[in-house]
Amino acid sequence: MLSSEKLKIGLIGGGPGSFIGAIHLNGALMDGMFELVAGAFSSNPEKSKQRGEELMLDPTRVYASYDEMFAKELELPESERIDVVAIVTPNNVHFDPAVKALKHGFHVALDKPLTLNYQEAKDLYHIVKASDKRFLLTHTYSGYPMIKQAKQMIAEGEIGKVRKVYVEYPQGWLWKLLESENNKQAEWRTDPKRNGLAGCMGDIGTHAFHLAEYVSGEKVSAICADLYIKIEGRPIDDDGVVLMRFENGASGVLTASQTDTGAENNLRIRIYGEKGGLEWQQELNNTLIARWPDAPAQILRAGTGYLGSLANENTRTPAGHPEGYVEAFANLYRNFARCIYAERAGEIPKPEWEDYPGIEDGIRGMAFIDHVLKSNESDTKWTPFIVEK
Amino acid sequence: MLSSEKLKIGLIGGGPGSFIGAIHLNGALMDGMFELVAGAFSSNPEKSKQRGEELMLDPTRVYASYDEMFAKELELPESERIDVVAIVTPNNVHFDPAVKALKHGFHVALDKPLTLNYQEAKDLYHIVKASDKRFLLTHTYSGYPMIKQAKQMIAEGEIGKVRKVYVEYPQGWLWKLLESENNKQAEWRTDPKRNGLAGCMGDIGTHAFHLAEYVSGEKVSAICADLYIKIEGRPIDDDGVVLMRFENGASGVLTASQTDTGAENNLRIRIYGEKGGLEWQQELNNTLIARWPDAPAQILRAGTGYLGSLANENTRTPAGHPEGYVEAFANLYRNFARCIYAERAGEIPKPEWEDYPGIEDGIRGMAFIDHVLKSNESDTKWTPFIVEK
Amino acid sequence: MLSSEKLKIGLIGGGPGSFIGAIHLNGALMDGMFELVAGAFSSNPEKSKQRGEELMLDPTRVYASYDEMFAKELELPESERIDVVAIVTPNNVHFDPAVKALKHGFHVALDKPLTLNYQEAKDLYHIVKASDKRFLLTHTYSGYPMIKQAKQMIAEGEIGKVRKVYVEYPQGWLWKLLESENNKQAEWRTDPKRNGLAGCMGDIGTHAFHLAEYVSGEKVSAICADLYIKIEGRPIDDDGVVLMRFENGASGVLTASQTDTGAENNLRIRIYGEKGGLEWQQELNNTLIARWPDAPAQILRAGTGYLGSLANENTRTPAGHPEGYVEAFANLYRNFARCIYAERAGEIPKPEWEDYPGIEDGIRGMAFIDHVLKSNESDTKWTPFIVEK
Amino acid sequence: MLSSEKLKIGLIGGGPGSFIGAIHLNGALMDGMFELVAGAFSSNPEKSKQRGEELMLDPTRVYASYDEMFAKELELPESERIDVVAIVTPNNVHFDPAVKALKHGFHVALDKPLTLNYQEAKDLYHIVKASDKRFLLTHTYSGYPMIKQAKQMIAEGEIGKVRKVYVEYPQGWLWKLLESENNKQAEWRTDPKRNGLAGCMGDIGTHAFHLAEYVSGEKVSAICADLYIKIEGRPIDDDGVVLMRFENGASGVLTASQTDTGAENNLRIRIYGEKGGLEWQQELNNTLIARWPDAPAQILRAGTGYLGSLANENTRTPAGHPEGYVEAFANLYRNFARCIYAERAGEIPKPEWEDYPGIEDGIRGMAFIDHVLKSNESDTKWTPFIVEK
Repeated sequence: MLSSEKLKIGLIGGGPGSFIGAIHLNGALMDGMFELVAGAFSSNPEKSKQRGEELMLDPTRVYASYDEMFAKELELPESERIDVVAIVTPNNVHFDPAVKALKHGFHVALDKPLTLNYQEAKDLYHIVKASDKRFLLTHTYSGYPMIKQAKQMIAEGEIGKVRKVYVEYPQGWLWKLLESENNKQAEWRTDPKRNGLAGCMGDIGTHAFHLAEYVSGEKVSAICADLYIKIEGRPIDDDGVVLMRFENGASGVLTASQTDTGAENNLRIRIYGEKGGLEWQQELNNTLIARWPDAPAQILRAGTGYLGSLANENTRTPAGHPEGYVEAFANLYRNFARCIYAERAGEIPKPEWEDYPGIEDGIRGMAFIDHVLKSNESDTKWTPFIVEK
Repeated sequence: MLSSEKLKIGLIGGGPGSFIGAIHLNGALMDGMFELVAGAFSSNPEKSKQRGEELMLDPTRVYASYDEMFAKELELPESERIDVVAIVTPNNVHFDPAVKALKHGFHVALDKPLTLNYQEAKDLYHIVKASDKRFLLTHTYSGYPMIKQAKQMIAEGEIGKVRKVYVEYPQGWLWKLLESENNKQAEWRTDPKRNGLAGCMGDIGTHAFHLAEYVSGEKVSAICADLYIKIEGRPIDDDGVVLMRFENGASGVLTASQTDTGAENNLRIRIYGEKGGLEWQQELNNTLIARWPDAPAQILRAGTGYLGSLANENTRTPAGHPEGYVEAFANLYRNFARCIYAERAGEIPKPEWEDYPGIEDGIRGMAFIDHVLKSNESDTKWTPFIVEK
Repeated sequence: MLSSEKLKIGLIGGGPGSFIGAIHLNGALMDGMFELVAGAFSSNPEKSKQRGEELMLDPTRVYASYDEMFAKELELPESERIDVVAIVTPNNVHFDPAVKALKHGFHVALDKPLTLNYQEAKDLYHIVKASDKRFLLTHTYSGYPMIKQAKQMIAEGEIGKVRKVYVEYPQGWLWKLLESENNKQAEWRTDPKRNGLAGCMGDIGTHAFHLAEYVSGEKVSAICADLYIKIEGRPIDDDGVVLMRFENGASGVLTASQTDTGAENNLRIRIYGEKGGLEWQQELNNTLIARWPDAPAQILRAGTGYLGSLANENTRTPAGHPEGYVEAFANLYRNFARCIYAERAGEIPKPEWEDYPGIEDGIRGMAFIDHVLKSNESDTKWTPFIVEK
Repeated sequence: MLSSEKLKIGLIGGGPGSFIGAIHLNGALMDGMFELVAGAFSSNPEKSKQRGEELMLDPTRVYASYDEMFAKELELPESERIDVVAIVTPNNVHFDPAVKALKHGFHVALDKPLTLNYQEAKDLYHIVKASDKRFLLTHTYSGYPMIKQAKQMIAEGEIGKVRKVYVEYPQGWLWKLLESENNKQAEWRTDPKRNGLAGCMGDIGTHAFHLAEYVSGEKVSAICADLYIKIEGRPIDDDGVVLMRFENGASGVLTASQTDTGAENNLRIRIYGEKGGLEWQQELNNTLIARWPDAPAQILRAGTGYLGSLANENTRTPAGHPEGYVEAFANLYRNFARCIYAERAGEIPKPEWEDYPGIEDGIRGMAFIDHVLKSNESDTKWTPFIVEK
């Protein structure tokens, strides 16, 4: 079914100590469809070199900058050259490498949120749309099989018309001024210049927003945002809530915090419709609870025989053998790869493979950030949510 | 320690098929401090009589109306007469019997919310304050031992200054127009004349609000409310969210719904402070989770030896022998009784016994309803929360 | 439906500080069908008197011994006299008061296990069978609604023929030599003269055994027991396992321990049949999980509309309002009372009311203790399980 | 730290539709330390070729048999040749390829159980001991970080001397005669010639046994086994229980079933010691519960800062980002690789890296099977457990 050769990745970012860079690799490599062949791992050439050694790369393909990577790779024969550029840098280094990668003819996998700001997002949107290359935005949580099951059940009408969406994303790691304690992650994520103007809402609120729309299948039409800086001295929000109204009349509540002291990462979504409800939480990601008004709730489990095609195409173990966060990443990468392979083979990718987040999700996420910041400043309760492209 | 005779209850409401009337009795009777001796169970004399028989009461003390009950009981010698009036009627029949009971010299236990509307609440407030009789408002959830443990831990500074309060109250029983299907509970609770103008927010939002303030020890100073009627044809809200700001600077999110299809009654509260967080859910009521930034979360359990005095005074079984909803009611009634007994004995009740909800909680709850309705009508995001008395 | 007067209890045992005595009262009183009117609370007359005062009893009906109680109560007019004797003493004081109570014409509620030893059990068996009085043995756990639901589902064939029964009862409270630290509970329960020769297996193993047979509907036909004394200096077992074979060919594993350090009281039963499986644990008592081979597991919940008649007759709150251990006791007492009332009224009690543990359960429990001790001494793997009467 | 080149794997088994072959690859590839370069995927050359194409291998290195693989790979220059042979065939094809691989100088990763029978195990034991090559036996569950945390806590005395080990392994997939329905997995696992004489106990009982010894740090000294064939027509056990005694005086209970209808794969272990207890279940693998007699239970979580070195070396995501079954495999492979790399570099591997299961675990597992079968046949309760080598 799949043809001939692994997809060759050139990685931008993911230097020594990076969290998300390593996870992208775990996910991309797991299924044997990708190989890492090149990288510009850090703006510091020494660190880039060090990371290249750790990753056992050919030193001639470890670059001091992504510009160098693009230049040198393009000199290689097409059969050796990288196919995909994966970008795992801070948000201020998303736009430029993504645009260049596309222009040089590489597929792009980019960590979320799309860009540093809304203007970049709008520009990138048109570049991606005009390109014939594939574009993956790693909204991880939409890679979980039971999230996909929820999406499919709702799309197929199992809970009826959606009335209500609750999504909560509690973290606690920024419970103190960690950015003053030499923590790299905390430093850039609380720095408006590298992270953008929305802190918590940009980093994890966008995940929650994406999940709300992805699972419900409904689009937000208005919001009411209330952001907080809970830790004195922090320049951007670390906590907040966004009320939502959807085009179909449903309502929603999105909470996100990085100062819920002691909380880990238990993203949780609950969607209720006219006939039933679905509940999922990330720390128990292999389980989806379905609730019904006059019958016992059901525990749907990943890897079972009774799930729909979306879940089935996004799992690799039988029931009771937990898959996790890395597999969610791997699902995004695997679907991205399957589509590339299918097109190479002149085939039409399965709809289940096309179900990975991309530029439409990206621009909506940046619109979310933009509208949340505006609504937070406003004394008026509701701000219409209109995505400009 | 306790003296001489059981407290004699006269019950108003709780006719055949009533849910909450039976629960009040279970709770009041369990610990052997009360006995039911009289009642006006229904405005329908036949039904009152029927219920009196079911409860094995002396037929001469089963009354056709509470006015009759007051008149006849006062004719009895003081040693035989009722001590306490428990009122478990719809909200439009709270004010009048409560006022009369107090004026006739009876202690009062009243189901929440306090009254039909804010004006009645303000009037009752002054009557209760002027009375030397005890007044219990049955905000059940504050009777759970692990809720009391959470309150005490926060009061003693264990999680530091409170930063954030999440309280959610999802129910699903009104997921359809049940009030059109001959369901008595649904009928009066969706009828503004018997229930008051706030539906879901009056019925369960007030519980959530009370719990938020009770556990956190902080008072709300402003709100932003957003209510919905999810079921066509229903005259009052059945779903909503209230953003909260507290006097100490904390923020909060309160959600309540009776149309979260398939949800039962899983009231859940999470409070995060500068040093840690506490999480509790009613369907797992014997457990309190304490979260800490740099140490394992802890599972605090009812009936153990390591809890504080508030929890200890409000439990009756050792760890692993679940207490539940009825025991939460019983705790309210037991503390109420202990205070009455102590005063009869000329003693000062323990502070742990005084910790039952009363008129101050009641008027704040009615103010909550009033402000939520106003905020919901307003385009301005925040409405100051000011309790008039 | 129920007639005229509360059932009058005379309590034997349950002196100051008793755990189980207080629980019996909570359970018996909760539903308003019983009243406590007399007691011989302790073999120490001073303590009996003290407890009588705490319970607000008429001092003339607080007795120095149960013999005195029987004598004096019989002098009272029948309409004032106790109806039911509840016995909550250590096991060595079960047989004598139970026999006397029955002979004097009182119904009996007795804490488990039935007697101090198997011989007493056999004697009591015939006395109960020959009596026209009701006999309740408080195997608490069979009072839980979801246990009754499991029993009914199995009886109705929902999981097919039973193949396997797992029952585990982990406690940790005797993790050290607590009986040497002036702990009354630990003292008598580890004293063969007051407790009988089986420690853990007598105290909680019998509960587990009862539950296994009660829920599965199958009878044990052979056992293989392996007991331990985990704490040096303790004269009787505090830990053990019993393999079981059932008459229908099913197999089972029963574990019980009081030295599983840190464990509370999480009695757990899992029964698997040819078509499905059921799982329940006491610390989450309002939930029953049903598992199926090709469909999602189901979460059955107490108080819902989809349960069978056995569960429905043994609950008092709607779904999501947890009932607990005290309500399980109350269910036993309520069914016991309903049967007495029905017979008084010349009616046949509902089968659901008759479903409370009695003398047949009691003698099987004592046979269990007897066979476990024998099997534990034997080098032969299997010991046939034969109940002598 | 790690040097130069990925380890090259030649895979034996794992043909089209194989479950465990794909998981081995996912686990081995994830961390970028291995690459798959060759394989003999099936005894059917067509299927081997098909699988090689799916895996995008060089067709010249896809072999019709493992003998061919060994022969051809040895002809390649050492720098291109495979380093590691991974064997994922049915149990009857473990011994021969493992012995040949070692003799040809390849490291070996072998799926459990070690061999078809005890005699092969003893022979292989000496061959492995005499070899200078590394040998990994994939007892997956010992790769989970929280299992390693439990092991380390016990080794460091945190729960005191171990008293009790419970391990249960409930599966339900063989609830019916699936082997008669053209299910490959079921066919070979219930075929004594391919699987060995112990069915359920060989397949999953050995996992449970390994985990019991691995986590507790104690060795079994005697057993009492009771096996069942629950499904008529099946030639070997599909359900059973094994009582255990340990050298240090602890006792244990091991249950395993493949006919617990509806169960998935919730391997669960609980170990209690003199000072506390630890509880873990595979379906919630990122959590370890620690219980204490006089303090709240603790929820230890993977990826946190408070864990020991064993857990820390075996995780890749921060707390709240679930790792799962594939990562457990990956941990085994990563440690195996780290040791190979370290030795290549002339360094001594960290003790945490050496902590992967190997030949000593393998022979104990086969001794377990042998003794379980003997004990099951015996009427004597206890069979001494003596591992012959």
